[in-house]
Amino acid sequence: MGEFELIERVKRRLPRAGPRVRLGSGDDAAIVVPGGATATSVDALVDGVHFRRGWSSLGQIGAKALAAALSDLAAMGAEPGEAYVVLGVPPDLDEDGCLELLDGMAALAAETGTTLAGGDVTRAPALTLSMTAVGHAEGPEDFVTRAGARPGDSLVVTGELGGAAAGLLALEAPPPEEWSSFSPDSEQKLDHPDVVGGLVGRQLAPRPRLAEGRALAAAGATAMIDLSDGLATDGRHLARSSGVGLEIDAGALPLAPGVAEVAAAAGRDARELAISAGEDYELLFTIPAERWDAAAAAADVALTRLGRALDGEGLRFTAPDAADLDAVRGYEHL
Amino acid sequence: MGEFELIERVKRRLPRAGPRVRLGSGDDAAIVVPGGATATSVDALVDGVHFRRGWSSLGQIGAKALAAALSDLAAMGAEPGEAYVVLGVPPDLDEDGCLELLDGMAALAAETGTTLAGGDVTRAPALTLSMTAVGHAEGPEDFVTRAGARPGDSLVVTGELGGAAAGLLALEAPPPEEWSSFSPDSEQKLDHPDVVGGLVGRQLAPRPRLAEGRALAAAGATAMIDLSDGLATDGRHLARSSGVGLEIDAGALPLAPGVAEVAAAAGRDARELAISAGEDYELLFTIPAERWDAAAAAADVALTRLGRALDGEGLRFTAPDAADLDAVRGYEHL
Repeated sequence: MGEFELIERVKRRLPRAGPRVRLGSGDDAAIVVPGGATATSVDALVDGVHFRRGWSSLGQIGAKALAAALSDLAAMGAEPGEAYVVLGVPPDLDEDGCLELLDGMAALAAETGTTLAGGDVTRAPALTLSMTAVGHAEGPEDFVTRAGARPGDSLVVTGELGGAAAGLLALEAPPPEEWSSFSPDSEQKLDHPDVVGGLVGRQLAPRPRLAEGRALAAAGATAMIDLSDGLATDGRHLARSSGVGLEIDAGALPLAPGVAEVAAAAGRDARELAISAGEDYELLFTIPAERWDAAAAAADVALTRLGRALDGEGLRFTAPDAADLDAVRGYEHL
Repeated sequence: MGEFELIERVKRRLPRAGPRVRLGSGDDAAIVVPGGATATSVDALVDGVHFRRGWSSLGQIGAKALAAALSDLAAMGAEPGEAYVVLGVPPDLDEDGCLELLDGMAALAAETGTTLAGGDVTRAPALTLSMTAVGHAEGPEDFVTRAGARPGDSLVVTGELGGAAAGLLALEAPPPEEWSSFSPDSEQKLDHPDVVGGLVGRQLAPRPRLAEGRALAAAGATAMIDLSDGLATDGRHLARSSGVGLEIDAGALPLAPGVAEVAAAAGRDARELAISAGEDYELLFTIPAERWDAAAAAADVALTRLGRALDGEGLRFTAPDAADLDAVRGYEHL
C-alpha cells in the first residue's frame, strides 16, 4: 500500500470540512483561514504505553487519540477546528486496519465538529498516533489558560473521577460477578456489567468536554486544565502556572460509580486512585465564588466544588484522614 | 525525568517567540493570532526508517525533522510560523540526549524564524519525531498548491538533484579516496572529502528552501511541491493534482556534484537515482513561460527548466535514451 493510496481512501471517508478549511488533506499543507486566535495542542498515543491493542478496537484507539488532543482544546475553552494525524504503522497492521482506526477517529471528528485536515503515514515499530488539534476563538483573551487562578477562587471539577483508572484495573483483572464481596458495607449489589462497562468505557472511549469547556470559559473560569495525568499532577500544573496553592477537600472527590468497589478489590485506596490516575479527561478549573451560579447553569454536566485557591503553592488535601494524600503523585508520560 | 521538567529545561533554551505567538509551550495549548491564512503540515521521522542514529548526531536528527516539515511550508510559499514536536523517546535516550536533539531543532528554528511553540514527550520503542509546522500568508490565495499547473507552463526545479541519495550511498559504502576509479571518463580527480561531505550533508542536514518558495510564489508559480519523495513520486503528485501531464528532459536534470561518480561506483544510473530518490528537499514548480525571468531574478538559487506541463497525465521523460525512465518510481514512506 502506498501512502498516497491510503490517503485517497481516507479522504473519501472524511466528514465535510469546516468553514475555515480552504484546502484539506492531499497537498503539501492544509490551508485554513482562522479568523481570530488559535489554540494548538499536540499529543501522542503509543501502543504499550497509552493503550493495548488487545483491549481496544482499532476504532477506539483512533477515537481516543483524537479525544485526548481535543481535551486540551476543551481545557482552553476553544471551539474545535482542525486535527492532523501522524500514523506510525507497525508491520502487523494492514491497510484495512489503518482505515478502521481512522474511521473511529473520523466518527469522533464528525461528532465534535472537527475537520481531519491532514496527515502523514509512516512505518514504525509500534502503533503510534501523534495528533495535532487546533481550536479557535474570536480573540486570544477568550482562551482560558492554566495561569489565571487567584487566591479565593473556587476550585471545581466536572463530572466524575477515577473511572478511567478503575476501568484499567477491571481490564487488568476482571472482577467477579459478586460485587458485594468488594464492598462489604454495601447493602445493595451493583449492576455489574453496566458499572464495569461504564468504567471500561471511561478508559477506552473517553469523550472530551468541549461544550463544557466553552461554557465554563464564557461563564468566567479563571484557569482551566484537563485531567489527563490525574488531579495530583494536573492540579500542581495549574497551581504552579497560576502561582497559587490549591486546597482540596478529599471528602468531596466525585468518584465514578464502581470506583470504590474496584479499588477495594485491587487493594487500592479509591481516593488515592482518583487523585493519582489520569485519563478521566474531566476539566479542573477555578472561578470566582460569585460566578459559581453562572457556571453551574451554563455547564451541561455535574460540577463539584473541590476546594479553593489560596496564597502559597502546591496541593493540600483537607479531611480528617487526608494528610497522606498530600504526597500522592500522578503519572507523567515519560 | 518527568515530562514537565524536560519541557521546562527545553523552554529555557528556545529562541524568542515570534510576534504572532501569544502563549508558547507549557499550557494545554499554544495561543497564536495568525492574522491571515495558515498552511499546516505534519511529518514524521522514525529511527530506522528515515534516519539512523549511528549516522547522524542527535542535533542533526532534530534539525532534519524540522527541516522536512518546513520544506512543506516552503512548497506552499508560506512564511514559517510555529512548529510543534511530539518526541517518542526510546529507553536508551536520556534527558541530555533529548536536549541535544532539541537544541539542533531549536537552532534551525532560530535560523528560519520559526517558533517552537509546543510539544509532547512520550516513551516509544524507537526514536520518533512527529512535527507539525504552521506557516502564514496574508490570504489563502497567496499559497501555492500542487493543483494550479496549466498546459504550457514551464516545469522548473531549484538547486541540484540526487545529492541526498548519493549521500546515503556514500554512508552505506564509503567510497575510496581514488575518485577517478569511479569515473573512468573523468580527466580530473574530484576533491573527495569536500564532495562526499557535501553529498552526506544533503542527506543528514537538509535545509528547507523557505525564502526561495516565498519568492517563487510571489513571482507567479502556479503549482509547487517539495521533493521529499523524489521527482518521480512528487512529480506525479503535482501532475495528478493539477490534471496535467509533465514532460521532462532527462538530459536537463541538474545533478549535484559527485552524484554521477557515487552512482557509478554503486552500479546505479545517476539519472534514475536523481529521479527516484527523495530527500533533496528542492522545490519543483510550474510557471507560465512569460514569468520565467521574474522567477529567475527573484529566487536566490539556480533554477533549471526541466520541461513543461501539457494536456494528459503522468510523467514522460524525453531524451534519446530516456524511454525506460518513464517507469521509474520514487519511494513512499510506507
